[in-house]
Amino acid sequence: MNSKDTRLKIDPLEVNEPPTHLSVRTWLRLYACSNLIEQQIQQRLRSQFGITLARFDFLAQLVRAPNGMKMNALSKKLMVSGGNITGLTDQLVKEELVLRQDDPNDRRSYVLICTEKGRREFTIMAQAHESWIGEIMSNLDSSELKRLYSSLDQLRNMLTPANHT
Amino acid sequence: MNSKDTRLKIDPLEVNEPPTHLSVRTWLRLYACSNLIEQQIQQRLRSQFGITLARFDFLAQLVRAPNGMKMNALSKKLMVSGGNITGLTDQLVKEELVLRQDDPNDRRSYVLICTEKGRREFTIMAQAHESWIGEIMSNLDSSELKRLYSSLDQLRNMLTPANHT
Repeated sequence: MNSKDTRLKIDPLEVNEPPTHLSVRTWLRLYACSNLIEQQIQQRLRSQFGITLARFDFLAQLVRAPNGMKMNALSKKLMVSGGNITGLTDQLVKEELVLRQDDPNDRRSYVLICTEKGRREFTIMAQAHESWIGEIMSNLDSSELKRLYSSLDQLRNMLTPANHT
Repeated sequence: MNSKDTRLKIDPLEVNEPPTHLSVRTWLRLYACSNLIEQQIQQRLRSQFGITLARFDFLAQLVRAPNGMKMNALSKKLMVSGGNITGLTDQLVKEELVLRQDDPNDRRSYVLICTEKGRREFTIMAQAHESWIGEIMSNLDSSELKRLYSSLDQLRNMLTPANHT
């Protein structure tokens, strides 16, 4: 077995790749784009609003749930551990952006609700976020962006058919 | 200002989005796909080889650098902190998968080299990794995969024109 023949290939100038190699190269691009965009968004959120991406994502989920969300549902959505969610929640409750409210369906439990203040703050950040993303993706023309969305949507459906958001 | 009008929209059934919204929706798909694929790869690397993704990525970089890499170059490539790289390096050196070698161009410095043992172990994991990615992306046909690669490549070039790999 010759390791030189089987190692990952990421030379962008290489052509006529077998299909499997193209999958790997596509994954490497996907991963790199995701990390680089995430870094840019993180930097901008920090410098312009002094907040973390985790906190922005937390509020983004709650804003979309007018009846509130249980902690474990939120944790699942955000793909972070329960511990992190608890810390974030404590912080956001203290700043009056989020409320813990008794769960009407289960009196031993509670749901997290975004306050009006939280909603207002999130709206301002979401507008900035939207314009940053528009700027970052501005080198893709409208039809290419639509195609990219459609391919990623298909891939996303395949990855978790039951939990599509 | 009505927060309902300006918050992020992620309903996949919504159509005729203005371009900016489509950018955001594309970013959310990109981010979700990246995280979900990363999780799957992480789980498989752990269960089949007992290793972390960070360690796999570390070896992947060194295997492609026959003359070795300096620690800071590797750290930049892997987008992780120097501290993490040091810990990983110590571990991999101990297991004889990586060597610290004097830098011929700078005698106060050293480069990291992948050993033959490291190369052999990586080759086996890379083959499995390649087949997992092929399987994960198997719902995209060959022409769609090519288009997806091309769009992501364009986006990647835009994000860091100087550091394209």
